[in-house]
Amino acid sequence: MASTRDQIIETTCILLESQGYHATGLNQILAESGAPKGSLYYYFPEGKEELTAEAIARSGGILAQNIRKGLAAIDDPVEAIPAFVCGIAHGVEASGFRGGGPLTTVALETVNSSERLNLACREAYAGLRDAFAEKLIAGGYTQARAEQIATFIISAIEGGILLSRTNHSGDPLRQVASEFEVYLRAASKT
Amino acid sequence: MASTRDQIIETTCILLESQGYHATGLNQILAESGAPKGSLYYYFPEGKEELTAEAIARSGGILAQNIRKGLAAIDDPVEAIPAFVCGIAHGVEASGFRGGGPLTTVALETVNSSERLNLACREAYAGLRDAFAEKLIAGGYTQARAEQIATFIISAIEGGILLSRTNHSGDPLRQVASEFEVYLRAASKT
Repeated sequence: MASTRDQIIETTCILLESQGYHATGLNQILAESGAPKGSLYYYFPEGKEELTAEAIARSGGILAQNIRKGLAAIDDPVEAIPAFVCGIAHGVEASGFRGGGPLTTVALETVNSSERLNLACREAYAGLRDAFAEKLIAGGYTQARAEQIATFIISAIEGGILLSRTNHSGDPLRQVASEFEVYLRAASKT
Repeated sequence: MASTRDQIIETTCILLESQGYHATGLNQILAESGAPKGSLYYYFPEGKEELTAEAIARSGGILAQNIRKGLAAIDDPVEAIPAFVCGIAHGVEASGFRGGGPLTTVALETVNSSERLNLACREAYAGLRDAFAEKLIAGGYTQARAEQIATFIISAIEGGILLSRTNHSGDPLRQVASEFEVYLRAASKT
């Protein structure tokens, strides 16, 4: 069973993903996590910013793990990455367009207003890049090239999630997956 | 000179871009636009949602115009698009990472909470896609292929803006521009 601290963090992750940082209040987090009043400031004495930084780190860690797990299904990254993106399309649809991109809204909301949250988001995105880069390196790409390609891939996926959620359709993400095939066949390994 | 109505919309565009929908209050819009009290509900009787829908449409129109203007500098879309994205990188840097993506934060914040704003965002993104697709069609791509490629391009640019703002660096966007060259040389026109 999840600890009270974990319950609070998990609820925060879900609320940040579906509605962003500013719309998420501590009272809602308390109510939806079922955590006893007082536990919030016991576990997170610095309040909403500290809790959000923890939630971003948690979401980033889970995403990186999902990327590694998802890409492991197929050996060749040129095939594994498009297939993985089709899976994201399905996940975004299954969430009713609430899910997909637990970092994006918070990242943009806090880019200039909270150094702590900005750093947490940077680290989370770097973790995603590393997860894609690892797969490419295992497929024979140099580390420098793998990181460049991974940055591009994360950009297109993040934007694809944005368009899919906005349009209430997985199609933009499936288009990204399809163009990744064209791109990855053409991209040099060095 | 801009009318009071225009001043209110322009101020709203700027605030939505830098801080998002939930963090932007009507009082701040009034204060920063210098509009007289009362003018807000005179011009926008339905309040913040109506004003935001107008601001999204305005930002979308300006972006589509900027895309058309920016892409017109070079004939071949395979060269014009990467060069345009390098320009975005410069713009995001010059804004102190506040600018770039006047739609994204609002789009994600309101995807499931306001049908009116969701529709405004969809229309705005469709306008951006059409601006890129036009350039590709003029370069000999079929309309269907041009729209597919344009969806991918917008995804990667939006994600690149997100990473550049988060990392306080134009480099992710410049990487996107560089990979676009690889991709566009490989993408079929039909």
